[in-house]
Parts: sequence; C-alpha cells; structure tokens
Amino acid sequence: MKVAIAQLNYTVGAFESNMVAIIDNINRAKSEKVDLLVFAEQAISGTPAYDLLNKVTFLDLGEEALVEIASYCDDIAVLVGLPIPHANRTISAAAFIQNRKVIRYIGKQNVSSRDEMYFLSASKGCEYVKVNGHKVAVVVGEDILKEQEYGEYADTIVCLGANPYSRGIIEKRYDFFRHLAYQTGKNVVYVNQVGGQTDIVYDGSSAVFNTKGEAVCLLKSFEEDYASLELETATPVEIPFQNKTINVYRAIKLGLKDYFDKNGYEKACLGLSGGIDSAVVLAIAEEVLGPERIKVLMLPSQFSSYHSVDDAIEMAENLNIEYDVVPITDAYRAIVESMKPVLGGTDFDVTEENIQARIRCTMIMALSNKFGYILLNTTNKSEEAVGYGTLYGDCIGSISILGDLYKHEVYDLARYINRDREIIPENILIKEPSAELRPEQKDSDTLPPYDVLDAILYRMIEEGQHREEIINAGFDAEVVYKVYAMIKKNEHKRYQFCPVLRLSTCTFGQGRIMPLTSKYGY
Amino acid sequence: MKVAIAQLNYTVGAFESNMVAIIDNINRAKSEKVDLLVFAEQAISGTPAYDLLNKVTFLDLGEEALVEIASYCDDIAVLVGLPIPHANRTISAAAFIQNRKVIRYIGKQNVSSRDEMYFLSASKGCEYVKVNGHKVAVVVGEDILKEQEYGEYADTIVCLGANPYSRGIIEKRYDFFRHLAYQTGKNVVYVNQVGGQTDIVYDGSSAVFNTKGEAVCLLKSFEEDYASLELETATPVEIPFQNKTINVYRAIKLGLKDYFDKNGYEKACLGLSGGIDSAVVLAIAEEVLGPERIKVLMLPSQFSSYHSVDDAIEMAENLNIEYDVVPITDAYRAIVESMKPVLGGTDFDVTEENIQARIRCTMIMALSNKFGYILLNTTNKSEEAVGYGTLYGDCIGSISILGDLYKHEVYDLARYINRDREIIPENILIKEPSAELRPEQKDSDTLPPYDVLDAILYRMIEEGQHREEIINAGFDAEVVYKVYAMIKKNEHKRYQFCPVLRLSTCTFGQGRIMPLTSKYGY
Repeated sequence: MKVAIAQLNYTVGAFESNMVAIIDNINRAKSEKVDLLVFAEQAISGTPAYDLLNKVTFLDLGEEALVEIASYCDDIAVLVGLPIPHANRTISAAAFIQNRKVIRYIGKQNVSSRDEMYFLSASKGCEYVKVNGHKVAVVVGEDILKEQEYGEYADTIVCLGANPYSRGIIEKRYDFFRHLAYQTGKNVVYVNQVGGQTDIVYDGSSAVFNTKGEAVCLLKSFEEDYASLELETATPVEIPFQNKTINVYRAIKLGLKDYFDKNGYEKACLGLSGGIDSAVVLAIAEEVLGPERIKVLMLPSQFSSYHSVDDAIEMAENLNIEYDVVPITDAYRAIVESMKPVLGGTDFDVTEENIQARIRCTMIMALSNKFGYILLNTTNKSEEAVGYGTLYGDCIGSISILGDLYKHEVYDLARYINRDREIIPENILIKEPSAELRPEQKDSDTLPPYDVLDAILYRMIEEGQHREEIINAGFDAEVVYKVYAMIKKNEHKRYQFCPVLRLSTCTFGQGRIMPLTSKYGY
Repeated sequence: MKVAIAQLNYTVGAFESNMVAIIDNINRAKSEKVDLLVFAEQAISGTPAYDLLNKVTFLDLGEEALVEIASYCDDIAVLVGLPIPHANRTISAAAFIQNRKVIRYIGKQNVSSRDEMYFLSASKGCEYVKVNGHKVAVVVGEDILKEQEYGEYADTIVCLGANPYSRGIIEKRYDFFRHLAYQTGKNVVYVNQVGGQTDIVYDGSSAVFNTKGEAVCLLKSFEEDYASLELETATPVEIPFQNKTINVYRAIKLGLKDYFDKNGYEKACLGLSGGIDSAVVLAIAEEVLGPERIKVLMLPSQFSSYHSVDDAIEMAENLNIEYDVVPITDAYRAIVESMKPVLGGTDFDVTEENIQARIRCTMIMALSNKFGYILLNTTNKSEEAVGYGTLYGDCIGSISILGDLYKHEVYDLARYINRDREIIPENILIKEPSAELRPEQKDSDTLPPYDVLDAILYRMIEEGQHREEIINAGFDAEVVYKVYAMIKKNEHKRYQFCPVLRLSTCTFGQGRIMPLTSKYGY
C-alpha cells in the first residue's frame, strides 16, 4: 500500500486557504499513484478554535470545504481532520474520503487537552477503513495514547494529530510510536500539524514506523513537509539526535513568524535595555522578520549604566536595526513631582522603580500605537515566576517569546545565536544581570543566584515538587521558602500577562492555573 | 426525617477554618435532633482550586479535616463535599458520615464547568444512602441536571452544589428543583456554597422542595444561612420575586467583600473621572469597605471639563472619601516632549489619548504600590467588548466589578444606589458619556449610542447571534458590522484584562474564549 503524509501549516478559520493547500497535496499524491493520503487533525479548520468550535457557521464552512476536497479524490483515499457537529455539540473527526465521497467520520474519544476540553465532546474513538484490500485502524489525536486492542486483520494504524511542541516531546513521540508499531506488529502512520497559532507551536515531526518498529519516514520538524512511500518495502531511516536548544530556537522562530504572518502584522518593536533578555528577543526577531521590520527604543534612566546603552546601541548597529534613545528622566521627574501631594515624604522604594518601568511602557506603547509596531515582551520564566517585573511596566507586550524559558535557557539561546559571529555583544553575555531601577542594583540583591533559582523553580513548577522534597535534595530551606512565597504572591501578575509562547507543558497562564484567592500554603 | 441544610462561606485551601465552621453547624444540628445535615460540594476545601486539586498535600489536608469532622458525627448523619484522590486523578465527592465514620463517597459524574473540567475526573454519579429508614439519593453538582431514574424506594434527592451566580440563575434553579420534585414525587434538598472567590460569586439560595413540588425552605441569597425542618410536615413557603438589579448589586457587594477579606487586603483605590462607571464602583466600594478604607485620585488632563472634577470631588466629599487631585498635564508634556524624536511631526491621534490613560495608570499604581491600596478597575462590559479603553491604561486593576455589566446596567445600578439619597451626583447620571481624552470628545463620536450598542452586543455575545440575524431584527447593517469588527479586533485587550467578577455565563476571559489568531470573519 502506498501511503503519503502531508504536514501543512494551517490557520484557524482560513477555510479557503487551508482547503487549497489540501487539494494541492491531493493532486500531488494522485500523480504519485498514492493509495492513502493522510492530513492532520482539524486540518480544514485550523486549531485551536476555542469557542468558534460551537458556531454553526464555523462548522458549516468546514463541511463545505470538505465537500469540495472530496470532489478531487478520485483514485485516491484520503483522511483529513475537521470539527463536525454531533448531537448538539462538536467533535473532532477524521473524514475518510474514497471515490469522491465522504464514506465515514472517525471521531476523537479522548478530549484531554486544556485547549479543547470545554469546546469539544468525546466521540467513539478508533474505527477501521478499507484501503486497497488493507484494513486500516484510524484514530484522532490523543486516542493513540489509549491502550486498546487493534483488530488482528488491520495491518496499519493511522493517527491524525494536532500536537503542540514542548521541550523533549519530539523524542518522546518517536519513542511512543516505535514501541506501538513493534508491540502491535502494525505500521504506524502519524501526521501532525506544523506552524504557530498565537502561543502554540505545532512542531510537525510526522512519521511512519514499519511493523518491526523501525522508522521508515520522518518529516521535518518546524517546517511544512510531504512524503509518500510503499509501506511494505520502505527502508528504515535513522532517528536523528534532538538538540534541545536548537529545537527551542526553531520553535520560537516559527511561533514568532506565524504570529506576525497569520495576524497580518508588519513590524515589531521592543525596548532594548542592554541586558540579555531583550538582546535575545531582538536577535530572534531580526532573523525572523529582517532588520527593516524592527524598531527598538533605548529608554535609559538616571540609574542606567553607560555600558547598558552602549551595549544596546552596539547590538542594534550590528544588526542594522533602527533605534532611538529616549531618556525617561524628565518624565520620571514630572510624575514624581506631580505625585508629591500623594507620595511626598516617603522613601525611594519599589514604587519609584515601578514608575520607571511604567514610563517605559507608556513610551514604547506610544511608538506602537502611532506607527503600528507590535510590541515584543522580553520577560523570561524565572522572572515571571517570582514576579521580578512590573505589572503594566515590563510585563507588557503583544506576545512573549521567552516567557516559558528559565534564565539559564535564555543564556543557552544567546550562546547558540552567537555560534558563528558575535550578534549579541559579548559584554551582554558576561555582565551581571540587573534591572537598573536603583543605584548599583543587581538581580542578586533580591533573588538567589539564577542557577540556584532556576533549579528550585524547575522542581517547583515543572516537577510539582513540595518544598520539603526540594530542601531534602540539598537546597537551603530559607531560600526555598522565599522562592515559594514569591511565586504565590505574584500569581496576580501572571493573570494579566500577555500570551506566552508555550515551550513546556506547564506554561504560566495556560498549563498551570492557580487560584488568586487561596489560603493554601503547603 | 428531620433534615438541616448549612449554607456557608468557604475559602479555597482554608481547611482549618472551613472545618471549624462545618463542626459548629454539626453541633447546632445535633442539638436540634437533626437526622441528616447537608453541606455544599467541596465545602471542606473551598472551590475552585484549579491545579491545587492535583496536589497530594491539598487532598491530604482535606481528608484529615474530614476525619476530624466525622469524629463529631455521633447521632447524626452528615453529607459534606470535598475533592478526593481516585485512580491517580481527583474527583469531587460527597462524603456520607454516619456513627462517626465515613461510610462512603458519592462522586460527581458530570464535570462540565470550565473551572473544573481539566482538574477533576468524572466519577460514577448518583448513589443511595440510608438515613433513619429513609432511602436518600445523593448527587453532586451538575449531576442533578442529568435525566435519570431515581430508585422508586428513595423518597428524597439530595444535591450538594457549588454553583456560581449569574443573572437569572436563581429563578432558573428554583424552577428546575420544583419540577424535579413534582415529577419524581420526591423531596429535593439542595445546598449551595455562598461567597466570593476572586471572580466567582456563589449565591447560596439553597432550598428544599417537598414531594408535591412546593418550596418548603428557602435559604437566603448572598449570605450564610442555616435551617432545619421535618421533611414530611414542613409548610410551603412562597418563592419571592427576584429583582435583577438588586441581585446583581448584592452579588457585586459579596464578591468585592470576599475578595478583600479572603486575600487579606486592607484598602482600595481608584481613579475618579466624574463619569458614571467610576462613580458606581466608588459607591459600592464605600458601602462594602467603608469610607476610611478607600482613597481616590482625580487625574484631570487639559481635556477634562471642570464639571468632571467638580462632580468627582462632590461625590468623594458626599461619602467622606479621602482624595487628591493630581493633574497629569506636566507628565503628559514631559512624555510627549521626550518622545519628539520618535513621534515628532505626527498629528494628535489615539496615541496621545493612550498616553494620558497610561500616565493615569502610572500614577494610580504608584499610590497602590506605595501604600498598599488595591486598585479597582472601572471598565464596563460594553467598553471591554468594543475595546473602548486603553491597554495598560484604564484596563488595569486588581479586580473589575463592573466588567460583566453592559453600560445600561451600570446606569440601573446607579439609580438603585441613589434610591434613598443622592450618593452619586445627579449630574454624573445625566451627562453624556465621554472619555475626555481630546477636546469636546463624546463616546458617541466613536461608538453607536449605548442603547443601540448594548442591544447589538447582547445579541452577539450573550446570545451568540450571527450578524445577519441581528440585521434581520432591524439593526443598521453598517453599525452591526462595525461593532462586530471592533469586538474581533480587541480580543487581545481582553486577554490581558484583570479578573472580572462574573455576573453572566459569558464573562470575557472565562466564559467566552476566542482565538487571538484567526481568519474567521463570519
């Protein structure tokens, strides 16, 4: 049986262009005499569509596109995903098309992702179709994870997925499919979506494994791709090593690119402080959008060191990025002066630090509003965790591309970015992190060193460890308690944070949701 | 059979104080020779606990409290809700206690609210317990809505709920229980939680209906309450008329009170513009917190009319609220001047309007940061829908108490607040709404009149009507399309909005979730 897999980049609600791309691939597969062509879950509609999934018009447009797609399916069988109405609700289904007709729908049973649970109902799960004398088991999405008996006469399992990237997931998926193929003695064909959808990146990495559990086809990660092969005779290929930093880098680039392309955004802006985070954001944005689509502002205060502005300027000039230096000193003085009747007589504290951050917000948003630049947030996950940032100050932006990376992972990215030449000035990489909101300030005045902080945060957030476990692992009890208290106290900042590109399974705001009101302190 | 129902105000994770309140009520019921005492769903833990529901320690604390509670249950049967571990996941259960022992758990099957779906698993649903020779069917939460056969020997159905308030829900629930009791010929006993939990208000309104479908006991709405009664002989009571504005008013007061009490917040602040929204927020806050716990700022610009500041001052003085008038003019000039190299030569537009709103944000947040005042947001649902507000400007705050009310409902509240005396100066009620961000600005320059806007928004948002339906109902097509485009364009502002007290079933951010990236335009 000759099978083809088409890994495409869809957009939510773009029924026309999604359909055209699907039909192009059908025509290609027909010319290659393919028996069965497989697309991803919810290919026709794009995903996640959230509450749009329960709009009648949205579902109607999907079915209209499906009818059009079916009309191209002579001499080929096709499996393509879309949401369909079912019993007053909506299910995620694979449409099986043969001889230009939709023969049946296979619905997803296991609706378990947070992006879908409320919007989709559970359907029946795995069903079988006949292609060219072969019996093929078809499952949608997470149904593949369910332990189930596949009929003994079926020789192939096909899974239509729409599975987001998270660190380490590509290896895990390959492993899972390899074992499934080996244990069942059946071919496994997996097709994923690829592309960014606001805060989600579908990584692609579609694959085919033969009945011995050998990979016989691996589509690219983070790119559209297509392949066809004879299941019975395809030769094994090696599964390449997955470099975490490179995968994260490619995920961010794809996420950022599609955020701009799919929303029709032209230009980006950010505040460049001379620190590591904004430098990494700028380097990635420059590679994705090109220098002519970016503008940066340096917004120094009286507490900014000269080297900060110099480093920022050096980097902008390195990359041919348009920039302006706008001191915030006058605005700061005006606000503090105007607020004297309210604040007069009090000492300099976090209030005055926040005033600086919020003036920067006002200025960079003025640039954004006046000329349509989309503001890129520059916060990392370590800062977001402990609330080391100003609400309505530096927590702002249209999207955060580093918000799911701990500080040390931002450094990993920086070193990778500088692998061939010094894009980020070395001085930015080696200087001690500082918010520069008061004289001689260092992050380490308030926070534990980032290596310690990140290790504690990783255990608390990614692994859900209790404080006692972390202390037993050798961390200082006082530091652990302090970090825990900071996480808890700053839940409200995360509530109002901009969308964060998800690179883990516990991204703040989506993958980890805590009550704002709670007496729980354990 | 003598039944008691205890409607209490729980806090998430406050196992100790929740337990003490539960035990107090057990002692009271024992002294009244009650056979069966019923508490609400998740009474021991409080709700919604989100990801805390899958923390082992959180569940352990619940079970420890349950054991302690059981030790008080001699000579009385008790049903009390808590989350319990089950097959590596968590379920919402009713613990049935008799003779100081937890006899069994009845688990919730229908986990359908957005606040619980990802965090709780489905359990078996309705089960029966024996109390004093009576067979009692027990269900948790939404399981009561499921059409099911109740065993013919059961004479009573008990439902433990944790059901939030939304407009019209109290009447609907009474109706449902009345019909259920009448149709099954069984007594129906319903116990709800009461109290605010960040953006949720549990309204209480627990009730008992007899086998004829007559109400025989109605606990208060929006307050703790308790009652005991002999099911067989209780006399019917009349179901009172539910006034929508009064219920909304009480829901907001309870939500605001508990937001402060349960989070340990002392003081509130807000910007008082002289407009209707901030006036209503202030009036409610004053009633809930008292004047000495509130501070307001008037932050006039060159575009503010004198009557705005005068009206604001009049209201603050009426209520004995501390206030300061801080003109934003100097700060505005300093920022515009500093930004000249970036913005110079462009015309006054929405950019300069937003600069004013963001300076106000910076100033009021400085007050908040310096002295610990919690900022109350003043946006209403009409503005939030069409994006008539500045991100990081007036969209800010710790909680929004009007964000689920359309503009005309804010006026309804204002008139109710003024029912006995003029708390809100009449001038604020009769003046034409204006953001006062440019000379002679009126909301109606940009928006349709609020009565038209609200009617269209209600159809689009609360009723999910398609634009064509709304146009067919007689609304101007151009206006309908414009409103639709504004809603769609401003999804990103709602993403970063502060928590909104929920007064409907489609509160932005929680009850209505749309993709930020989408080509769907129907």
